[in-house]
Amino acid sequence: MEHRKLKDQDRDVDLAGVDLEGTRGKDLLVPIIPLSTFGGVPGDRQWKRKSLVTIALTILTSSQAILIVWSKRAGKYEYSVTTANFLVETLKCALSLAFLMRIWNREGVTEDNRLSTTLNEVSVYPIPAALYLVKNLLQYYIFAYVDAPGYQILKNLNIISTGVLYRIILKRELSEIQWAAFVLLCAGCTTAQLNSNSDRVLDTPFQGLVMAVVMALLSGFAGVYTEAIIKKRPSRNINVQNFWLYIFGMMFNAIAIFVQDFDAVMNKGFFHGYSLITTLMILNHALSGIAVSMVMKYADNIVKVYSTSVAMLLTAVVSVFLFGFHLSLAFFLGSTVVSVSVYLHSIGKVLMTYR
Amino acid sequence: MEHRKLKDQDRDVDLAGVDLEGTRGKDLLVPIIPLSTFGGVPGDRQWKRKSLVTIALTILTSSQAILIVWSKRAGKYEYSVTTANFLVETLKCALSLAFLMRIWNREGVTEDNRLSTTLNEVSVYPIPAALYLVKNLLQYYIFAYVDAPGYQILKNLNIISTGVLYRIILKRELSEIQWAAFVLLCAGCTTAQLNSNSDRVLDTPFQGLVMAVVMALLSGFAGVYTEAIIKKRPSRNINVQNFWLYIFGMMFNAIAIFVQDFDAVMNKGFFHGYSLITTLMILNHALSGIAVSMVMKYADNIVKVYSTSVAMLLTAVVSVFLFGFHLSLAFFLGSTVVSVSVYLHSIGKVLMTYR
Repeated sequence: MEHRKLKDQDRDVDLAGVDLEGTRGKDLLVPIIPLSTFGGVPGDRQWKRKSLVTIALTILTSSQAILIVWSKRAGKYEYSVTTANFLVETLKCALSLAFLMRIWNREGVTEDNRLSTTLNEVSVYPIPAALYLVKNLLQYYIFAYVDAPGYQILKNLNIISTGVLYRIILKRELSEIQWAAFVLLCAGCTTAQLNSNSDRVLDTPFQGLVMAVVMALLSGFAGVYTEAIIKKRPSRNINVQNFWLYIFGMMFNAIAIFVQDFDAVMNKGFFHGYSLITTLMILNHALSGIAVSMVMKYADNIVKVYSTSVAMLLTAVVSVFLFGFHLSLAFFLGSTVVSVSVYLHSIGKVLMTYR
Repeated sequence: MEHRKLKDQDRDVDLAGVDLEGTRGKDLLVPIIPLSTFGGVPGDRQWKRKSLVTIALTILTSSQAILIVWSKRAGKYEYSVTTANFLVETLKCALSLAFLMRIWNREGVTEDNRLSTTLNEVSVYPIPAALYLVKNLLQYYIFAYVDAPGYQILKNLNIISTGVLYRIILKRELSEIQWAAFVLLCAGCTTAQLNSNSDRVLDTPFQGLVMAVVMALLSGFAGVYTEAIIKKRPSRNINVQNFWLYIFGMMFNAIAIFVQDFDAVMNKGFFHGYSLITTLMILNHALSGIAVSMVMKYADNIVKVYSTSVAMLLTAVVSVFLFGFHLSLAFFLGSTVVSVSVYLHSIGKVLMTYR
């Protein structure tokens, strides 16, 4: 497994190449201890940063779901979803620019953190935003075949599609144990969501299943493609990369406003129906979006999937206290399976280095 | 891991020491290839025999459950369960004696296959039968706290108790991955059994839970103790060991007839309510019982638990064809988790030898 070890080292060196806050050190070629990503050797900066962004994503995703429950309890969505999405992209763009300006002040403008770019670099950035737009449009049609709880269950196909595309497109290896863990993650998340109506999803018509698979592939492809773009230029500052990603996000969401909500925005105004919760949700989505990018840069799509899955379970536990939810036996069983999956994923990497 | 390898070799040598049909060879000290139990190297007799008894147990357990469904469909149990249990023990005893006589004819009576025994050898044989008797008596009381479907779910605690007692009493090691697989087996079996009423088990009173845990420990202890008795004398013929186990099984079941069904047997007769299905069930239980002993001799309690768990899933699939059962989403998810667990258990052993 010498080959695998070398590949891991390469990746860790890549990740060390760029830094959000501009505190880039000179430790690019520090030898990597194979166990560091598991045991958490103190002082291993790559590992610390990876953990930090992963925890941030987990907490933000979890509080996102809680805000959604809260907003549903407070009444129906009154605002237009497309304008909110546009504002999320705008806020992410503005935050990236703010981070960048801080770095420019401290380090000056360098080849890696300058905003100006070449057509060659920027040409791939619209693709993830375009894929998400197609996926969101499909979402309107799938509800002709599947109800909302059924759709929630089918969305777990994203886990499998991300794993498969991660392997095919990014050509990263997962050990047998990590593949097993990934199947368990999908089964565990679905189990945790089971309720007395879940079996209806087995009666989903063939067209509905095909659409669900296509949407899972689109979503997985967008995620994996974003990681490929961000990792392609390891030394490029993540905030520059985010800025360009979000600029195109703004554009495609502007198109969505025109296509879907043009009349409503013209008649009732852009901010019609916005409330405190809406504002908090937009802020949360923007921060989560940035956290996802960071995870793509410093970790990978697999970590992202684990992070958001664990967030789903956290949300349910927090909802017991906040909203008096009852946890089902299925939830306990699913959580157990997800926990074992997280354990196996981490142990799977360690064991691979022994072979 | 040199230590672990040596221990495995010891065990394989133990298993090679005795043979049901008396075809014992001279290969006791053949060097063991570490991968043999996973990859199935042709000609590896230990592996073949282990597989054979495991498959036999799986098929017998599965058809046992199907007979139970069939008998329930055909009407209520009319016969007394204690007399049936007594007949099962008697049949097992008779079959063991028949196997033994065949071996005596072919090989003559030796130190290892003679029926006569010492008090020292035989003194431990009543213990498993006594433990099962206590467990069966407790079973009558637990239904004051739990309904039958809830009891089916709590019975999955047997999996965990067997694993823990196997580790503590037999002092056998399981790798981290095999422990993870064991937790998954328990979660997966429970998930596969979920239905719309399963959440009621969460309201089980504390006394009910304590009784369920005690019963799981009794059942796990009886299984692990039987393995310890059978493996203690590796060269002793399994049919002699079975004969003595079943003699005490007959005695304890005779006590149960007197305690529970004495009046019914005296008034209606011993065979009242027996039908073709009853006879088939008794035959099946007897063969399953012998298969369990064989698994204890040539494999272990862990293999037994996997075998009977997979049998549960097989039963459900076969019931779709036989009785038009519908499989639930929970069943598919649980089966997936159990399948991954079986895979991880086998791979867990291979990986351990690498460390």
